[in-house]
Amino acid sequence: MDGSSRSLRVIRAPLTVAVALAVTFCAHAKPQAKLPRADAERLQRRIDALSKFGANADGGIDRVAYSEADRQARAWVMTQMRSIGLKDVRIDAAGNILGRRPGTARGAKPIMFGSHIDSVLGGGNYDGQAGVVTALEAIELLNAAGRSTRSPLDVVVFSNEEGGLIGSLAMTGHLKPSTLDVKSDSGLTIRQGIRAIGGDPDALETAVLPKGALKAFVELHIEQGAILHEEKIDIGIVEGIVGIEWWDVIITGVANHAGTTPMDRRQDALVAAAELVLAVQEIGRWTEGRQVATVGRIKALPGAPNVIPGRVEMSLEIRDLSKPKIDQTYARIQARARRLARKHGVEIAFRWIDVASAPALTDPAVRTAIAEQAKGLGLSTKMMPSGAGHDAQDMARIAPTGMIFVPSIGGISHSPKERTAIRDLANGADVLVRTIVALDRR
Amino acid sequence: MDGSSRSLRVIRAPLTVAVALAVTFCAHAKPQAKLPRADAERLQRRIDALSKFGANADGGIDRVAYSEADRQARAWVMTQMRSIGLKDVRIDAAGNILGRRPGTARGAKPIMFGSHIDSVLGGGNYDGQAGVVTALEAIELLNAAGRSTRSPLDVVVFSNEEGGLIGSLAMTGHLKPSTLDVKSDSGLTIRQGIRAIGGDPDALETAVLPKGALKAFVELHIEQGAILHEEKIDIGIVEGIVGIEWWDVIITGVANHAGTTPMDRRQDALVAAAELVLAVQEIGRWTEGRQVATVGRIKALPGAPNVIPGRVEMSLEIRDLSKPKIDQTYARIQARARRLARKHGVEIAFRWIDVASAPALTDPAVRTAIAEQAKGLGLSTKMMPSGAGHDAQDMARIAPTGMIFVPSIGGISHSPKERTAIRDLANGADVLVRTIVALDRR
Repeated sequence: MDGSSRSLRVIRAPLTVAVALAVTFCAHAKPQAKLPRADAERLQRRIDALSKFGANADGGIDRVAYSEADRQARAWVMTQMRSIGLKDVRIDAAGNILGRRPGTARGAKPIMFGSHIDSVLGGGNYDGQAGVVTALEAIELLNAAGRSTRSPLDVVVFSNEEGGLIGSLAMTGHLKPSTLDVKSDSGLTIRQGIRAIGGDPDALETAVLPKGALKAFVELHIEQGAILHEEKIDIGIVEGIVGIEWWDVIITGVANHAGTTPMDRRQDALVAAAELVLAVQEIGRWTEGRQVATVGRIKALPGAPNVIPGRVEMSLEIRDLSKPKIDQTYARIQARARRLARKHGVEIAFRWIDVASAPALTDPAVRTAIAEQAKGLGLSTKMMPSGAGHDAQDMARIAPTGMIFVPSIGGISHSPKERTAIRDLANGADVLVRTIVALDRR
Repeated sequence: MDGSSRSLRVIRAPLTVAVALAVTFCAHAKPQAKLPRADAERLQRRIDALSKFGANADGGIDRVAYSEADRQARAWVMTQMRSIGLKDVRIDAAGNILGRRPGTARGAKPIMFGSHIDSVLGGGNYDGQAGVVTALEAIELLNAAGRSTRSPLDVVVFSNEEGGLIGSLAMTGHLKPSTLDVKSDSGLTIRQGIRAIGGDPDALETAVLPKGALKAFVELHIEQGAILHEEKIDIGIVEGIVGIEWWDVIITGVANHAGTTPMDRRQDALVAAAELVLAVQEIGRWTEGRQVATVGRIKALPGAPNVIPGRVEMSLEIRDLSKPKIDQTYARIQARARRLARKHGVEIAFRWIDVASAPALTDPAVRTAIAEQAKGLGLSTKMMPSGAGHDAQDMARIAPTGMIFVPSIGGISHSPKERTAIRDLANGADVLVRTIVALDRR
């Protein structure tokens, strides 16, 4: 909370007066031209340019982090950053790309925004890229209007988002040393990969931003769900990024000959597993809310058509914005599993997998800024959780963080069919740049 | 039906008179000594000797057809056959081993009995072997008693039973030419394998026995189920070998991001599949009887914990002695699948797999002979289907066929833990030899 708002609270001014006073308090700011609207054609050109790096035959991209395609796309982004006047364009020790538009106030904390350009195998042209091209567009719009900001503006392209939020984990000081030895989809270990893109895995501490170092962090991203598209809403305001927990579930029955074992004498691990899959589906909806529970992987062993399954291995994932709600959902699933184990004469064991991420809430003030700027542009908004993980969840640990969602057509993502209308991307860029300006004024 | 029984029917004699007359009709037979009981130690020695070929570390065997271990065991069996006086010990064009004990009646049709000695990977020491060592024991007992038979007695060791009843299919003229190109577990194709064990895949027609060529075929086998063991019954009399039908079931939903797709907007192929697995379990018991329906294999695609399954592939197997009952069971499963497809917004397709075998009923007269001989020995019996496939199902197409089951401890089979008490094996040998003598007398 800064001095101006403290003063405002003291005089208990109604909102209109408060806004007037706030402008007065920004005495250092020069009179500034109105921001133009985002240039849809320019956004499209940048999306198209990026889509060439690692293009696959399906119209999507195979641009996994650290690959040759990733390196070429990164070089292109750095050239773009320099071409729009960003200073000190550089690669930090974690392989994150940073470029700065200097601010006018000496010692002011930077506002950071951006996303990533690496993709999954068989990915599309918007996941990550949307946040990068709109960040460049925000700079273009400020430049066009001749607008300065008190805070320096740092455009960021995080390294290896799809492979585990590596760049943002490193930037926030939470990358585990053991992760460096994990093999990435590029074939390189994370350590080798960071080196391959110009980082220095032996000096990761130099990439860490301490808590409080940034005034704010904002990420624009495609929704990756169908809600905005189906409800015809322009802008999603992310309440938080859901926490994710994973378990391996092992069901142990008795494998036996499918021809010689009558159906009432079986301890069929797959029959028990099937009931558990349905229980997960039912319990996932035990209460109002946006929690989700999923079984995505299943395997019966020995896996022959003529052998009763003696063992089933399956995955369980639970996501929600609230850790207690994740815990309650899991407890209900566990209780049901105990009953099913008794019923079917099998054992059901849950093994927690250490890939969990805690729920990360966005900053209320940043949410409000996004909402106000969207409203000012006449755009419809909806508050929503992000069901997918994002670099913003790491950044929320060290900075007031916000996320802007733009609609995904049909909710399709991680697919060559992933698409966002360029009009929606332009709306997102308009909200992004105005949110940054608003945050800068606070 | 032969002349003697025709005469018996004409005179409408009561049973005791009939037996006396039957003996009278066998005027050609010399007075013969009583058969001794099977020698449990000799049976054990032969089981132990066979267990050496392809022995694995778990106490079972890896003796897949055509392997070096299979070839060594076959050579051992041929030596055993010769050592107990069998004549014309030979390998037919399909790789079946045959040895003959000549009969006394010129032109009498042979009675054939035996089983197989090849195993599955990780198999045990009784599946197949039990039928071979008891066939050798039957010859030993006849030799010891100095008993002759009218019919020649042909001891058979079928080739590659576990890989698809290859030897008996060839012997009955039902081996498809395309099967010769299938790769067996040994790494060789069936064609190469037949050649490797001394057969001639280019002259399979020479191995074919026409319908009516045998007076009878009898196979002793372990039950591979737990019924005889649990109910403490000595001998199972097989009513028939169940028919088997296989399908691939493909469930097509919509793959999507497990974090961004609310649970009420999913078309989760695995949730539909889970309901279908439970439906198979329920419908498999829709009516009294021994029919079984099994899902043994399942796979969700893409198969990641964080992706809603868009496709599930699973197996369906239905077995019963009655083809109409198999068809009715399948029709009920299909009807349920149609309802589940509508409910979950998925497609469910069934693809019939061409590995089906038709139900094969055993011959009532052979069953009766087994039952009478067991009763005469004071052994308890139970009529039962064979849920597993056997060479006897092929032989039933060309000869009056019977099967004798001996108890499997705990019903375990296709496992190193497969075991049958040597006392039960000896009982089986006693019933087998007496059944052969009884059939010979008819």
